[in-house]
Amino acid sequence: MRNFNEFTITNAVMERLKDARDARMHQISAALVRHLHAFVREVEPTFAEWEAGIDFLTRTGHFCNDKRQEFILLSDTLGVSMLVDAINHRSAEAATETTVLGPFFVQHAPECALGADISGGMPGEPLLITGSVRGSDGQPLAGAVVDIWHSDSDGYYDVQQLDEIGDLAMRGRFRTDENGGVRCWSIRPAAYPIPHDGPVGRMLEAQGRHPWRPAHVHFMIAAPGHEKLVTHIFASGDRYLDSDVVFGVKDSLIGAFAEKPAGQAADGRVIRRPYCHLHHDFRLRPDPASAANPAEFASA
Amino acid sequence: MRNFNEFTITNAVMERLKDARDARMHQISAALVRHLHAFVREVEPTFAEWEAGIDFLTRTGHFCNDKRQEFILLSDTLGVSMLVDAINHRSAEAATETTVLGPFFVQHAPECALGADISGGMPGEPLLITGSVRGSDGQPLAGAVVDIWHSDSDGYYDVQQLDEIGDLAMRGRFRTDENGGVRCWSIRPAAYPIPHDGPVGRMLEAQGRHPWRPAHVHFMIAAPGHEKLVTHIFASGDRYLDSDVVFGVKDSLIGAFAEKPAGQAADGRVIRRPYCHLHHDFRLRPDPASAANPAEFASA
Repeated sequence: MRNFNEFTITNAVMERLKDARDARMHQISAALVRHLHAFVREVEPTFAEWEAGIDFLTRTGHFCNDKRQEFILLSDTLGVSMLVDAINHRSAEAATETTVLGPFFVQHAPECALGADISGGMPGEPLLITGSVRGSDGQPLAGAVVDIWHSDSDGYYDVQQLDEIGDLAMRGRFRTDENGGVRCWSIRPAAYPIPHDGPVGRMLEAQGRHPWRPAHVHFMIAAPGHEKLVTHIFASGDRYLDSDVVFGVKDSLIGAFAEKPAGQAADGRVIRRPYCHLHHDFRLRPDPASAANPAEFASA
Repeated sequence: MRNFNEFTITNAVMERLKDARDARMHQISAALVRHLHAFVREVEPTFAEWEAGIDFLTRTGHFCNDKRQEFILLSDTLGVSMLVDAINHRSAEAATETTVLGPFFVQHAPECALGADISGGMPGEPLLITGSVRGSDGQPLAGAVVDIWHSDSDGYYDVQQLDEIGDLAMRGRFRTDENGGVRCWSIRPAAYPIPHDGPVGRMLEAQGRHPWRPAHVHFMIAAPGHEKLVTHIFASGDRYLDSDVVFGVKDSLIGAFAEKPAGQAADGRVIRRPYCHLHHDFRLRPDPASAANPAEFASA
């Protein structure tokens, strides 16, 4: 097989895939080649544009390290992450809606007691987070593993400033009590631009887009017999709710960061300054196939 | 705009592109989003597969350095490079056909006198390379800049073994004489597998494909008023002519590496052992818009 031209090359590449390791590898490879070639045929890149594309991907790769995942940012900002999320959550179960994981999840966040302060001493308005975890049938799920993480009051995550703050902060792993309850103290997160000093930032600029996300708290919740829930709760009233750069906002995931006066808080703690309180009731989809051990399941 | 689902997300992302820097950026971004989403919709990746994709791109980026361009290998092995090449060479001019640049071109190869030995002392069967450079009207092009580069007799390029050999070898930049002639001595290159110890190698393995290219010599030829020619001449009889991993072979680019006895060679040099001789007549497409300075043009 030789002498390929723009009309014959796609089938030539497809033909080479006939001995792929398995049917799924064949399917994904063939679809990738077809769609990638269709993209090239549509835009007809010059050599300079092709080189710019190679360079963009290379710089994106070079920006990735253990604290920064530029390809996830790329997937998020092109709407691919939310599309994959939607495809994987088609069932109409009465369960909490999902959104992107984002690039700031950390596998082994500190295990914390219910009610703990996870702010790590970061400055900001105190925030009480409370929630309940139930199955889609409404039964409370005791012992569910709840990962909570969020930005500081300037919009930065701990992993973006580890050199300065020295340790993880504003994240923790909890286990729900016998009523499915979870609670902790932290500080109120701010809206923030996704890291935009790299190739994805330059892409957004060229596309005429801002890099902002509305303020939110991340939750990942795992319980035996249920699908792992990956979601956020967004701050109601945030100016970026309608233009989240990663397309992650759903109305059902908007929650009030309710302003409260100094005094005794909902968890019994007495607090001497005004604070805010975010509460959300989560419902997990049943998944009989999920692992029995929630800790194992949470870190899958 | 919120609450995107798998049916609405694509238009939502397109909508965000309305303030793109210019029409071309808008066109490329919109096409990228549409085709990328179509790919995702077709294969419906699980989260684990999406993560594997992110990881593949990240590892591919991390493999790129000043001696290795893994994303070009990816483009080459998926047939994208030859597709871009075909799209950019539609004219039916009587000109030499083109093929991929490949990842081993070096911007500033040593300037060499005509007839020079560029083997750098690498072991192998001596190879005399001769050629002529003409316009599509048949007129010889004097002073054209000709870059020549190829692998050693084990199939490795100089840049893959710089630590061992210490300097560039088997590459040089020449200027054609008043008859459009170019000539040099080197060693006969071998067929070789593209570098396959990285992510692209693992992809080829999973796709059930070998990583080999037929033996060839690269040529890049630039002359004022003409399109820069990027091509190879492949060794006739090579076992990989029909399965070049980057789909680059065209019949018109296959040349004889003619075996010659010891004695006086075509360039007048007396050689005491058998050698081989590769000759090719190149024709460049006219391009009135091309830069007047060939050196500048060659390194563009």
